[in-house]
Amino acid sequence: MEYKDLDKTKSFRFLKALAPFDVRKIDSKRIGKYMTAEAGTLKFNYAALPVDDMIIDQLQELADEQQLIEKYKALLGGAVANPGENRLVLHHLTRGRVLNGVPVNADGVEKGAFYADELEKIRIFSEKVRNGEVLSSTGKRFEHVVQIGIGGSDLGPRALCYALSQLDVKKLDARFISNVDPDDACGVLAGLDLEKTLFILVSKSGTTQETLTNRDLVFKVMKDRGIVKPEMHMAAVTSNTSPLAKTPGLAAVFFMDDYIGGRYSSTSAVGGVILSLTYGFEVFKALLDGAHAEDVKALEPDLRKNGVLMDAMIGVYLRNILGFPYTAVLPYSQSLNRFPAHLQQLDMESNGKHVNRDGKKLEYRTGPVVFGEPGTNGQHSFYQLLHQGTDIVPMQFIGFKKNQGSLDAVTDGSTSRQKLNANLTAQIVAFAQGKKNEQNPNKDFEGGRYSSLLVADELDPFTLGALLAHFENKVMFQGFVWNINSFDQEGVQLGKILAKQVLNGGEGNENLIAYASLLGL
Amino acid sequence: MEYKDLDKTKSFRFLKALAPFDVRKIDSKRIGKYMTAEAGTLKFNYAALPVDDMIIDQLQELADEQQLIEKYKALLGGAVANPGENRLVLHHLTRGRVLNGVPVNADGVEKGAFYADELEKIRIFSEKVRNGEVLSSTGKRFEHVVQIGIGGSDLGPRALCYALSQLDVKKLDARFISNVDPDDACGVLAGLDLEKTLFILVSKSGTTQETLTNRDLVFKVMKDRGIVKPEMHMAAVTSNTSPLAKTPGLAAVFFMDDYIGGRYSSTSAVGGVILSLTYGFEVFKALLDGAHAEDVKALEPDLRKNGVLMDAMIGVYLRNILGFPYTAVLPYSQSLNRFPAHLQQLDMESNGKHVNRDGKKLEYRTGPVVFGEPGTNGQHSFYQLLHQGTDIVPMQFIGFKKNQGSLDAVTDGSTSRQKLNANLTAQIVAFAQGKKNEQNPNKDFEGGRYSSLLVADELDPFTLGALLAHFENKVMFQGFVWNINSFDQEGVQLGKILAKQVLNGGEGNENLIAYASLLGL
Repeated sequence: MEYKDLDKTKSFRFLKALAPFDVRKIDSKRIGKYMTAEAGTLKFNYAALPVDDMIIDQLQELADEQQLIEKYKALLGGAVANPGENRLVLHHLTRGRVLNGVPVNADGVEKGAFYADELEKIRIFSEKVRNGEVLSSTGKRFEHVVQIGIGGSDLGPRALCYALSQLDVKKLDARFISNVDPDDACGVLAGLDLEKTLFILVSKSGTTQETLTNRDLVFKVMKDRGIVKPEMHMAAVTSNTSPLAKTPGLAAVFFMDDYIGGRYSSTSAVGGVILSLTYGFEVFKALLDGAHAEDVKALEPDLRKNGVLMDAMIGVYLRNILGFPYTAVLPYSQSLNRFPAHLQQLDMESNGKHVNRDGKKLEYRTGPVVFGEPGTNGQHSFYQLLHQGTDIVPMQFIGFKKNQGSLDAVTDGSTSRQKLNANLTAQIVAFAQGKKNEQNPNKDFEGGRYSSLLVADELDPFTLGALLAHFENKVMFQGFVWNINSFDQEGVQLGKILAKQVLNGGEGNENLIAYASLLGL
Repeated sequence: MEYKDLDKTKSFRFLKALAPFDVRKIDSKRIGKYMTAEAGTLKFNYAALPVDDMIIDQLQELADEQQLIEKYKALLGGAVANPGENRLVLHHLTRGRVLNGVPVNADGVEKGAFYADELEKIRIFSEKVRNGEVLSSTGKRFEHVVQIGIGGSDLGPRALCYALSQLDVKKLDARFISNVDPDDACGVLAGLDLEKTLFILVSKSGTTQETLTNRDLVFKVMKDRGIVKPEMHMAAVTSNTSPLAKTPGLAAVFFMDDYIGGRYSSTSAVGGVILSLTYGFEVFKALLDGAHAEDVKALEPDLRKNGVLMDAMIGVYLRNILGFPYTAVLPYSQSLNRFPAHLQQLDMESNGKHVNRDGKKLEYRTGPVVFGEPGTNGQHSFYQLLHQGTDIVPMQFIGFKKNQGSLDAVTDGSTSRQKLNANLTAQIVAFAQGKKNEQNPNKDFEGGRYSSLLVADELDPFTLGALLAHFENKVMFQGFVWNINSFDQEGVQLGKILAKQVLNGGEGNENLIAYASLLGL
């Protein structure tokens, strides 16, 4: 396996010589042709992105030269894909199946079996809670589940939990506490009957400041409200070496390990416990199946048959050849309202790096800024800039043919679903083609705005798992192209160290002392 | 008054010749000096932005040359500040006070009195609902209020409503339906006792597709659940020429007019009705007082005494001299969790324009992409890229000395509030100063990352109003500098037209037909 910086590859230099496709020229033939089937009913359409067959051929060369599929297989096989922390990268194994036929052994354990055992523990515990075999400390059935976690222990699980909110299954009420701002816990706890509430404390290291602080706040409120054994209302998800694992009296403890990065942990117990409690284990299992099916699809070396690889490579083209510093993620689904926030973390924390995997400073750009909100809401908000601003912002649309919930009706000749999808259709074409208005330049749309579309029949658990894995694998492939380590996050460390200094009075740093004073410390 | 493009000004050319200040060199003296008091306890600190006294002097020249304060006063006095739609811009009058001593007459009405009358109607109606004088169609007290609106009728009111969620006052339960995706209404309505629910329908034109569709869905569900007179559960906020104003049997109707742009309408009835119902009229009144006080501060021509003018001018410096395409808004307050989404709309819809106010295409950049999430959450997410990515992203922090809610406790030697503010302090300094690590470049922080800080004693209604007005006025001033119309939004029109075409079968547009087919239409 060869690790090469992007600007040292032959194919990158050839790419620069090719002119981008003008998306004002899209037609129905291209829309039909520039599309790849992914897992289940999911499809990736890239007709409105600025690539043609010559560019795609060259992107294929680049993918081959950077050995993306080989590096993916090596990662699956237990290579040290996170060299900065000298760790394996095993989140694909948390789908509950061994991929690519290679069992991975580490720390004297077969890791596939380890994650499968945790999955079985999740099944048993979630079923017992949901059917009333596990009760609260005062003998009540649990009706509310509250995850306490931050970053990877919050954004992914929360996005997935919200994403399934209109499913027609028996549900528990799910909530999340993340911020060390006590107003967060204050708001979540205010409306809850704590006798009927189960908390899930999630911290891989068992030392996350925000999460431990919120645990202590929650314990305090429970005791204030007369609950004598609050630990019976708490399950933990952590690594087996963490201090949390040894807390006596917890309702349950689930394990992950150092080979699962926080932002890649949604399909481990980090997301699995709350999803199984809220919607039932079968829902979580279907999500895992979708993610696994997508992981399998990503093994295909032919770019035109591998939608996530195509998405990743065109993303590199947009970033490093055309120079775009951002991507907007725009799901036409209210249930995906926090999915962009999860992708923002996944992408920006993974690929917001300025050194290559050997620590050498890079001379080219890596991960872009990612932001987004659901459509049609965004149309009435920031789309003005996307249509008529002085900069072009590449977009990634997500859409579904059917509703998740049961409510809809015909008004003014069409259903809400039809209106939603008509708007999505209209936006893609409006952005690409624009509309000239020479009399009134204020109403002129230049067009030439790039977008892709991920579309599936419906946002069911399988499709949600596939979507999640699509983006996880996209970020991984792009990290391979850029020759960076997408699996560490050293950039979060300095702030932690300085925050401790502030709490110790500033330790003589005049800038810390001056800002702390402004903030009342 | 002279309207001049930015690249035609003298001062802009001089600005280009000055070197930016290296924020690695901040010290406590600078932190104390580069700060301006705004309304109430709000302060704007710009010590960690790349400006020095010479640059500030030149920004003052530019502000003077572009006649920013004169243009603001003209707007307040009733000038046609929205030339594209030939409209006045009067949202400052919705604070309930005449600014700058000039009454504005339009359409045969004194507009200050018009908005004051609507404010009085809001007071009376909200008090009657809250004290049980106005009851539901089945004689129940209203416990839930649900706003149906989108864009400006949703993001601002929602952000403000969430922002006050931990206030210690008697509250009604407030919710929002915005998306035409029926899963949005499905989720909101699922948990509600509709006999106790009051809806607020908000659409200035009375023709917004999403909002009318959701009204019809809500009426259908109410009828399905046996409510015979659903209109008694609905108040409307609209213009007095709108068809909605004539709906018979509504619980109440409140008016705005064409001089209030959606994204600037939070202090009109658009935000006022739901805020007064949820928290009481006095809370909304305090918010208006804060916004008004901030509007008054913005009249000051001296940049060093006018924090919002300073914020606006340094923003132009970052955008047009240093070339940054984005700004991150990072409130260290969970209650402000949707404030960045409101600012994203406010800024990107106002200033995402490629033509000047006369319709001439511009040769320089206008509004940036705005995105953000609350801290400390973001620290565990996208801050990795902000610290160590290949691009610099300017940041706008917001912080408070005190909690809003009543919950806090000492854990591990400090309160949650202290931990929160220690983290905010640490981030500003970490971004500015960085920390060298030559042995391990992966742990190297280059520093030189720019940020400002808006800080106040607490997030009370007055301060929230001041914060809101800060950003409204910042966007307005920047629009004046860029010589654009910040008050229209022609960019949303093309999508609306094409969406209608799609619902009519595509009308022969092969691209619309092809994408519609992918989406099941």
